[in-house]
Amino acid sequence: MYYLVGLMKEAYERLLTIIIPADGDPIALLPSFEREHVEAGLSVPVAGISVWKEEEDPYRILAQVMRENDLARGTIAIDGIMQYSFFSRVEKALSQVGFVAATDIMDQLRVVKSTDEIRLVKNACEIIGKGMKAAFESVAPGRTEMDVYHELQSEIRRQGGAPVGFGGVLSGPFSALPHAETSDRRIERGETVLIDVGWRYEWYFGDLTRTVVVGHASEELKRIYEIVLKAQKSAIQMAGPEVQAQVIDRAARGFITEAGFGANFTHRTGHGIGLEVHEAPYLVEGNVSRLRKGMVFTVEPGIYLAGRFGVRIEDEILVTEEGRENLSASAYPEEELQVV
Amino acid sequence: MYYLVGLMKEAYERLLTIIIPADGDPIALLPSFEREHVEAGLSVPVAGISVWKEEEDPYRILAQVMRENDLARGTIAIDGIMQYSFFSRVEKALSQVGFVAATDIMDQLRVVKSTDEIRLVKNACEIIGKGMKAAFESVAPGRTEMDVYHELQSEIRRQGGAPVGFGGVLSGPFSALPHAETSDRRIERGETVLIDVGWRYEWYFGDLTRTVVVGHASEELKRIYEIVLKAQKSAIQMAGPEVQAQVIDRAARGFITEAGFGANFTHRTGHGIGLEVHEAPYLVEGNVSRLRKGMVFTVEPGIYLAGRFGVRIEDEILVTEEGRENLSASAYPEEELQVV
Repeated sequence: MYYLVGLMKEAYERLLTIIIPADGDPIALLPSFEREHVEAGLSVPVAGISVWKEEEDPYRILAQVMRENDLARGTIAIDGIMQYSFFSRVEKALSQVGFVAATDIMDQLRVVKSTDEIRLVKNACEIIGKGMKAAFESVAPGRTEMDVYHELQSEIRRQGGAPVGFGGVLSGPFSALPHAETSDRRIERGETVLIDVGWRYEWYFGDLTRTVVVGHASEELKRIYEIVLKAQKSAIQMAGPEVQAQVIDRAARGFITEAGFGANFTHRTGHGIGLEVHEAPYLVEGNVSRLRKGMVFTVEPGIYLAGRFGVRIEDEILVTEEGRENLSASAYPEEELQVV
Repeated sequence: MYYLVGLMKEAYERLLTIIIPADGDPIALLPSFEREHVEAGLSVPVAGISVWKEEEDPYRILAQVMRENDLARGTIAIDGIMQYSFFSRVEKALSQVGFVAATDIMDQLRVVKSTDEIRLVKNACEIIGKGMKAAFESVAPGRTEMDVYHELQSEIRRQGGAPVGFGGVLSGPFSALPHAETSDRRIERGETVLIDVGWRYEWYFGDLTRTVVVGHASEELKRIYEIVLKAQKSAIQMAGPEVQAQVIDRAARGFITEAGFGANFTHRTGHGIGLEVHEAPYLVEGNVSRLRKGMVFTVEPGIYLAGRFGVRIEDEILVTEEGRENLSASAYPEEELQVV
């Protein structure tokens, strides 16, 4: 909704929908008490606003509005993030209609970013970088992951980041679990601390990961860090117009496999970023779609040694006319393993 | 997933699903790199765990798992919060199957809370109450809504609340918009400040609203506050086993309408609360389902004077054998309009 009509609103529990006809202006259907708020938020003219009251059935009113506008026919593309509990009632109310997911259409529109969108992602990266700096500076043996997370979040918000975001502070063996969550675990000397942050600035996400070590780095950790860093750099170097998305994944994976850790790089190399923290293009084997100028995505290889430690380094890359630009170049340093 | 198998995991972007046969233990299907993390989180035995790799099609594997277990037939109830982009692919992969929303089945299970669940909601309310106290004490002319929000969030988290939650700090005319969001607006003397907080403690939500005034209350505001308070009290008094949900709504609405502000009370009187901030039972005209011992819901009438100010008071009510208990009784004071 935000991309098409400027409305950033979670349609959570109560039906709030924007109907976009193939021809003509959008029609809004919303809870009556949201009317004023939604009208103020719309960035485009609408053909009409219909409201439903708390005691009314919004799906009956939806069907009526669709019929009145001669739209209750053909095929309707549904926002991919609509919850099934909503969809199942929409489907029941509009029995003459076929449905497809709007995901492909929207991905096509959103995958290439405008100058404004690129600026917002870059700003988000800068803010996250400052948050990471504060967070890593607060790391000390005996402090918990959650303590460090608080520093991270406070600084990001002080810098103008959104009120909430995703931030994982993972230490020691937890850093070997790509999707673990910040816990009350105490951080010890000699352990890795991996911070992965996806945070919004004016609705656009930045997503960065850095891995540091507390006090002293083992030779093994230094070696793994070096492999991940080089894998990331060589993958970034491949990015440019007309390159297949899977080629970036192959570059990072090839390097890590060559070094003997292929089985320890358990996820794809990256994903697009913008209004969502994960969106097209996905840098994964099998994605033969070609990169284009204006696409923005993460490049984030990692090596995870179960029960011991993990290393991941993640940057945001913009595809340019000539090649690429690292939008997170000025964020927390990555060229060398930082000892905090 | 959390309610049935103990797994609190946003199935966001990558397919992660728990298949629950009518007979037998659940079967999990998940991204291969999530396996370790998910296995550690499950609270019940599973019949099997299938994984898919980044370059594989999870929907093809889902269909295969369903066929192998003789489950690719009949009707499948889908979690109501599954996103349509997932469902549309599930539907395509399982063409022999009918689908319904699992919402009604799950609501039936979840609507009556266990002693443990009630304790968690009550704890969440206490934590929110402390956050509100810190937030209201920080209010001063010239401070912004966001400044106050920071105090709220910091204190809630210091008290053991979840890392993120919903908190709206709305001042002056913004308090007349039930679903507006915290902004950088500066708060002035004589204005109302309405704080509505939905926050988790160990996955269970509390949801409270209080309205205060800065420096000095007008006679009109005092009167409106009194009406809302009395409407809320009389609605709470109606709660008990066997009472229809709509009766609570009628009690609050009747009182406010009698006082001449029916048109300014634009939303239902309340909603159930638990793992979700809004869930069954909904206290709304037309809901003839009857309250039962162990149900927990909000009672939150409000009066909104567009462009001027709004007042809402929200508590959490538990239905007991004999009647009701106010789980948020010890939270921030509401019996009298607080001047901060």
